[in-house]
Amino acid sequence: MSLRYDEKLDGVLPRVDKMQLLSRLRDDIPGLDVLHTDEQLHPYECDGLSVYRAKPLLVVLPRNVEQVQAVMRLAHEVGVPVVARGAGTGLSGGAMPLEQGILLVMARLNQILDLDPVAGIARVQPGVRNIAISQAAQPFGLYYAPDPSSQIACSIGGNVAENAGGVHCLKYGLTVHNILRLEVITVTGERLILGSEALDTPGFDLMALFTGSEGMLGVVTEITVKLLARPPCTVVLLASFDEVEKAADAVAQIIAQGIVPAGLEMMDQMSIRAAEDFIHAGYPVDAQAILLCEIDGALEDVQDDVARVEQVLFKAGAQEVRVARDEQERQRFWAGRKNAFPAVGRISPDYYCMDGTIPRRQLAYVLKKTAELSEEYGLRVANVFHAGDGNMHPLILFDANEPGELERAEALGGKILELCVEVGGTITGEHGVGREKINQMCVQFNEDELQFFHAIKAAFDPKTMLNPGKNIPTLHRCAEMGGMHIHHGQLPFPELERF
Amino acid sequence: MSLRYDEKLDGVLPRVDKMQLLSRLRDDIPGLDVLHTDEQLHPYECDGLSVYRAKPLLVVLPRNVEQVQAVMRLAHEVGVPVVARGAGTGLSGGAMPLEQGILLVMARLNQILDLDPVAGIARVQPGVRNIAISQAAQPFGLYYAPDPSSQIACSIGGNVAENAGGVHCLKYGLTVHNILRLEVITVTGERLILGSEALDTPGFDLMALFTGSEGMLGVVTEITVKLLARPPCTVVLLASFDEVEKAADAVAQIIAQGIVPAGLEMMDQMSIRAAEDFIHAGYPVDAQAILLCEIDGALEDVQDDVARVEQVLFKAGAQEVRVARDEQERQRFWAGRKNAFPAVGRISPDYYCMDGTIPRRQLAYVLKKTAELSEEYGLRVANVFHAGDGNMHPLILFDANEPGELERAEALGGKILELCVEVGGTITGEHGVGREKINQMCVQFNEDELQFFHAIKAAFDPKTMLNPGKNIPTLHRCAEMGGMHIHHGQLPFPELERF
Repeated sequence: MSLRYDEKLDGVLPRVDKMQLLSRLRDDIPGLDVLHTDEQLHPYECDGLSVYRAKPLLVVLPRNVEQVQAVMRLAHEVGVPVVARGAGTGLSGGAMPLEQGILLVMARLNQILDLDPVAGIARVQPGVRNIAISQAAQPFGLYYAPDPSSQIACSIGGNVAENAGGVHCLKYGLTVHNILRLEVITVTGERLILGSEALDTPGFDLMALFTGSEGMLGVVTEITVKLLARPPCTVVLLASFDEVEKAADAVAQIIAQGIVPAGLEMMDQMSIRAAEDFIHAGYPVDAQAILLCEIDGALEDVQDDVARVEQVLFKAGAQEVRVARDEQERQRFWAGRKNAFPAVGRISPDYYCMDGTIPRRQLAYVLKKTAELSEEYGLRVANVFHAGDGNMHPLILFDANEPGELERAEALGGKILELCVEVGGTITGEHGVGREKINQMCVQFNEDELQFFHAIKAAFDPKTMLNPGKNIPTLHRCAEMGGMHIHHGQLPFPELERF
Repeated sequence: MSLRYDEKLDGVLPRVDKMQLLSRLRDDIPGLDVLHTDEQLHPYECDGLSVYRAKPLLVVLPRNVEQVQAVMRLAHEVGVPVVARGAGTGLSGGAMPLEQGILLVMARLNQILDLDPVAGIARVQPGVRNIAISQAAQPFGLYYAPDPSSQIACSIGGNVAENAGGVHCLKYGLTVHNILRLEVITVTGERLILGSEALDTPGFDLMALFTGSEGMLGVVTEITVKLLARPPCTVVLLASFDEVEKAADAVAQIIAQGIVPAGLEMMDQMSIRAAEDFIHAGYPVDAQAILLCEIDGALEDVQDDVARVEQVLFKAGAQEVRVARDEQERQRFWAGRKNAFPAVGRISPDYYCMDGTIPRRQLAYVLKKTAELSEEYGLRVANVFHAGDGNMHPLILFDANEPGELERAEALGGKILELCVEVGGTITGEHGVGREKINQMCVQFNEDELQFFHAIKAAFDPKTMLNPGKNIPTLHRCAEMGGMHIHHGQLPFPELERF
């Protein structure tokens, strides 16, 4: 069971005859793989956010940049929208297809084109898996820092589209902080270079603008990433607390000490128990909350910081602090955290993962309010998240076979995100807006701000043929949901009014 | 003696009656300070790049955000262009006034509004001096990392406009990496919030887009900056080389070791001698090049890295490596570097500082080619620069009283920047494009890329009333200088053709 992908797009997008488009693609772009049967299209109906689904009109799998350009030119000529897709692991429905659109799957552009260990950079195609970059860099003692939980499967192109983070982004930054240069293909098939191997680029920062733009401005066909030296020493601490507030306070205190942990993660009781039952990580199942704090760097430096963090943790009221004795125990501590989502999946037929970010000082308040909302909506919520960045991941537990529960979960998720905005935070930390959070964008931004987003979109894609219906809501949509009031009565691009 | 600011703008900008505008400003915005006499306007004729000059029509000095909004609304209504100015220390003429425009001086918005040591952030007005933020944060063991040479005088608002760097940006990043949130006023006087205290923001990354946009998209009225913990230990090494190439090689080797120095600076013989004569820093005056390498962090960590760097330096052919014995010697080593520009000023009537950035592996080649160009143009060039980032600062020595020398210096500077682009670099590292490098933008970017810049500019400022004639060249200008060929024959905004 799933929600319709976007009822508002029905009847708005141009209707293109599927078989005609298929033969045009085959005639014009020899060697291009095109999928068109129901059976072939089925696996592409959703990305990692499976509550929204749609069957794409056609799926194309280009093998080189020239084929990407040719697809864009043909789509532009015919007037058919294009949605780009990486590995399909995204959690906000950003790569969800359109029933009247081409799904442009970048998986076969999967080569590491160049790796320069002296300069500490690699030039890669978008279909390269995140972890494959670090694997290729390993013989040189280097790695690529951003590590989303899906790093075994997710692709670097998708990471750029969503500005992906991961457990270590507190210290090492998001995708945008770890890339130098992008090659992109525009909606008309032109090739652009954004950024450079040099530190700074003149003009407007188009590379940052494209990063996290969810395929709305162009299609990324090459990425130059930074590689970092592997820290010689890594230690993880596990602290348990009898109150969630104390754990939240400890997070603020660690950061206030000027310590920048490589990772600082929090789990609440429901997550601890689910993870422990599943993974046997050695977590204290009676704790109300645990913190996992990883410190990396040179040996003596790490020893110093570990001692300081221990002190802070006890001062903040930790009942117990354990330092992983060896690499094996460190891996076990992390295995519990990294498998927390599937672990929660074992105690509930379905779950829905949210992704709000808040100022760290609001952690305790937002956790308390989330618990109240959980009660109000009659749905359990587990919390497993990047506490150091204030990036919350409430998991809403529900049963899609119970009538109304999916809709209630969606509504509760929306409320939690609005709570994040209220306290000065945002509706996404690392998963993106996609289809999922499009309504909450009306809460996050006012009319002026949304108008500028649309104007930027129009600068790159005036007919909104790239991933329409995602990321940036129309003013009309916001007005309808009551999230804002359109008083100017003017839209830069009236055709957007329609969906 | 100076060049005209931009002959191409003459007769293009609307002519507004100065006295009429003055009385409108006084009537509509009570309490706003407006300067209008020749004597009052004289100090505002240029910024730190004094080769271009122009007397502004009027100078306004708002005391609060409401006055900024009122000025923008009135300017928009009357149709007079606005150039925003911080402390006026910029080196690319980005804040150079227009003879037919209002100069909006932000110096009086100089309050630190909030400083939260636990969260490690401060909310400041644009007129706050860079160093004043670190001074306010010092009691808490915190500081603001970007430190342009002008940090005693330059303002944080100007730092945002130019995406300023400094000696330590190799490790700590540019301005864009050290800010979280901007309040900006649009060309029509609307107030926008870009970014947030949270780690990531949904939608397009407008904060990054505004940072470095040189006042072309809006006026920044509030900045939330990140504060970092002061590293407990800082050590600087001075290495001397008998060949420039060896020093350049050492730079690449240090980085390849995975060491990230807090600063890694290079000076050539002319700079070494000029600095030593002026400051008596203890530099080896017979060396062809020196490197200054600063390592910061925890004590043991620093000791380890210093030992490794020493090894690398000797292996790369250093003749001598000295580790500053104490804080006093460290300060003296840096004093030579930080005063290198005025030191060079003592050996030449005038000098012109360039700011190209190149991939590190091209350092030796670009230095060699620069020497050849220096010979060809008959002008001496001194090199003092951020070697670790590949951010070159060739200083072209000339005498403005010698007919043609200023023009020759300008031409040589342009050639050096074009060389940077050729090797995969960019025409600016941290000083911005401003008026100075507008022609080189035609070399850096192709027509498609420039079109997108203009489209983004138009999204925020469709009538190009904010700092016209800077940063982004018109396609017409590029065509005229032969730097590109306009084959589409279409401009998104035909009125831009005129200047």
